[in-house]
Amino acid sequence: MTSDTLTRSELHEAWPVLTPHERLEGFSLLGRAQAEDLFEALSSPSQFELLAEMDPQEQRLWVRLLDPDDAADLVQQAEDAETRDHLMGMLDKSVRAQVTALLAYAEDAAGGLMNPNFYRLRPEMSADEAIAYLRRQIRELIVAVHYAYVLDAQQKLLGVVPFRDLISAAPGQHVTDVMNAKPVAVPADMDQEEISHIFARHDLFALPVLDAEGHMKGVITADDILDVVNAEHTEDIHKLGGMSALERPYLQLGPLAMVRKRVGWLAILFVGESFTATAMAFFEHELARAVVLSLFIPLIVSSGGNSGSQASTLIIRAMALGHVRLRDWFRVARREALTGFALGMVLACIALVRILAWEYLYRAARHAPLYGEHYVLVAVTVAASLIGVVMWGSLAGCMLPFLLRAFRLDPASASAPFVATLVDVSGLVIYLSVASVVLHGTLL
Amino acid sequence: MTSDTLTRSELHEAWPVLTPHERLEGFSLLGRAQAEDLFEALSSPSQFELLAEMDPQEQRLWVRLLDPDDAADLVQQAEDAETRDHLMGMLDKSVRAQVTALLAYAEDAAGGLMNPNFYRLRPEMSADEAIAYLRRQIRELIVAVHYAYVLDAQQKLLGVVPFRDLISAAPGQHVTDVMNAKPVAVPADMDQEEISHIFARHDLFALPVLDAEGHMKGVITADDILDVVNAEHTEDIHKLGGMSALERPYLQLGPLAMVRKRVGWLAILFVGESFTATAMAFFEHELARAVVLSLFIPLIVSSGGNSGSQASTLIIRAMALGHVRLRDWFRVARREALTGFALGMVLACIALVRILAWEYLYRAARHAPLYGEHYVLVAVTVAASLIGVVMWGSLAGCMLPFLLRAFRLDPASASAPFVATLVDVSGLVIYLSVASVVLHGTLL
Repeated sequence: MTSDTLTRSELHEAWPVLTPHERLEGFSLLGRAQAEDLFEALSSPSQFELLAEMDPQEQRLWVRLLDPDDAADLVQQAEDAETRDHLMGMLDKSVRAQVTALLAYAEDAAGGLMNPNFYRLRPEMSADEAIAYLRRQIRELIVAVHYAYVLDAQQKLLGVVPFRDLISAAPGQHVTDVMNAKPVAVPADMDQEEISHIFARHDLFALPVLDAEGHMKGVITADDILDVVNAEHTEDIHKLGGMSALERPYLQLGPLAMVRKRVGWLAILFVGESFTATAMAFFEHELARAVVLSLFIPLIVSSGGNSGSQASTLIIRAMALGHVRLRDWFRVARREALTGFALGMVLACIALVRILAWEYLYRAARHAPLYGEHYVLVAVTVAASLIGVVMWGSLAGCMLPFLLRAFRLDPASASAPFVATLVDVSGLVIYLSVASVVLHGTLL
Repeated sequence: MTSDTLTRSELHEAWPVLTPHERLEGFSLLGRAQAEDLFEALSSPSQFELLAEMDPQEQRLWVRLLDPDDAADLVQQAEDAETRDHLMGMLDKSVRAQVTALLAYAEDAAGGLMNPNFYRLRPEMSADEAIAYLRRQIRELIVAVHYAYVLDAQQKLLGVVPFRDLISAAPGQHVTDVMNAKPVAVPADMDQEEISHIFARHDLFALPVLDAEGHMKGVITADDILDVVNAEHTEDIHKLGGMSALERPYLQLGPLAMVRKRVGWLAILFVGESFTATAMAFFEHELARAVVLSLFIPLIVSSGGNSGSQASTLIIRAMALGHVRLRDWFRVARREALTGFALGMVLACIALVRILAWEYLYRAARHAPLYGEHYVLVAVTVAASLIGVVMWGSLAGCMLPFLLRAFRLDPASASAPFVATLVDVSGLVIYLSVASVVLHGTLL
């Protein structure tokens, strides 16, 4: 990397931790070409914030750099109509019309992601005519996509010609000879997550977008999809951590906004978890008679939560990648019941060894019992409960994402803390019920 | 989408849930062009499994389709030297030499990701000469990248010419006039995660790879990076769920392998969590005298775990995106202590209201105390402990990823279950210590 690109890179890398003022300062230190590259590479919220630091004349200069799809994203950052109009007013008349059309699409659908500019060819052209025609288009408009789209008189997509194949075409060949006649294309209302799957599955660099009648409306490019995938992944991970997704980098979010993003889920989980106190109140009599039981409560309850969070995370990711579909629920449930049973058996063995060994060592050292005279029954209670709790945790954890998806909610909301909270109450009931049975007539 | 692409798409989409036999069957039903597209789009493990179902003559046909970088990935799927040699033997002599060179690079570094084939130009060429020279190269070799790389006599990278700019160049122009003279490039040993950041930051479609002397060795393309990003995301999410990353789709992993991937972490967490029993044994006397204390144990302990998993997930993702660096640890700690205090206060208020309200309602209905005569002191104990536990959870959760990174471990290992287990033991100690102080002389 040359020192020039490094400077622009370094500024971009440091962006999230700089103050708005430091950003503008760094930005104005860059050479013109470097600054343009950086501005185009910034996310729309970052562009918006940077512009807010400039005077209107400077703003206009930078806003006009953007492709229509990026300009539309920028305009959508404005929270009030006034700022939106102000930004729209800075655009060229023709670009403004394109941006207005783009704003009609949902931001996270194909129509909202696409660039409405692309290079076109007519099917009846020869290769030489096509190159001459393209040359004129390129001089008017720079687009990142190195494909030309072959449209008929009704603007319907007939095929795609990579520039590579046009360059290597023999002079006598026609556009229809070199074009790929069956290109993958998507409808304008397709969701961005599905589009990212299509990109990954077909190893694409660009994907044409069609309206309901098959007219070509624009092109989505691989670099935009990388941003989409990163943003969706951040959202998933934040949800998996049991909170609302943050839209801004961690260090840029104010302390109050941070609390607001987190307190909601934390309070819901707290209220859910408070049912453990209710459940335990039912067993207060048993807990009073056998205090030794309470010693193992966190251990048992958390084992259910842990196995549940393994299961839910696996299914959430498998769903996001399209590896598991709604109708696979029964196969998954059977698998998880089996896996949960095996995992529970392993933990039960560890628990048996741990309790018996501790008791033995304690007695050898202190000549007094640690877990009481019925320590073998206590160990059996803990072990048997573990099998039940881990199996139940795995089953609940794997079914929750299916349930959420069936109700058209985001499966990623089945976070580790959420699953743990759900499993905690039932885990307690399993444990204390097993104890009532096993210890009946001895401790209880 | 035409019906043809749908068929290939549908087969690709169903791939993870099909048996090896069903896959081969579906594959042989596709037309030749469709089958080629599908084969090239499959991941290396899927290609390897599909080939295993074919006879050697058919295998050779498909292996020869692959670009050298993909062929190298395929060869790396073989577990024994014999299969590896068998696959290498199917390649053309020249491709075999390239694959051998690629195998020397780490699979997840730039050198392992790049395609060693690319289009070249010499700086002294005119635009017309360049197009004629490119035409010859394209007829010999199809590469997905629509850029030509300008190399000097020592194979050092001087610049990049997009095909677009070559097409629109005036006849008299030289390659050096139209080339981008300062292209972003990466060294061959750069890690794939860092490369994906560079792609995202610069909105790139292709990235040249240089050796230590600046010689151009190959090109990494955006479609490969999308696969890398998806694979890294899966790994992160599985780690966050508290398990080893699975390398295969959920439904394709055998039940025994599934247990093996999950039992390790589950057992470690279990042993860690078993210290809660040890910690509680120290307070057995208090627990026996005030059984009401044990009712709130799961509630308090899980609140610490939940706030901790929020904090750790935030920092893990912020680190992965480059928004937080090691040296930001103090800013983060201060933020989280503050946020944790605020969150703890909110939960404390909910707890106070909840305990006092329940007690009041219970007394009104049953004319007997629910949480005993000192219920106000119990409520104060729970509320005060919550503030301490949530603050401690947030702090521990946010510092753990820093600690892991400082020791060059993956911050994503600071999963919700791991953080919860760490925080559980200390949460118990905080709660029962607060209780000893607040309830001294009354309940204890």
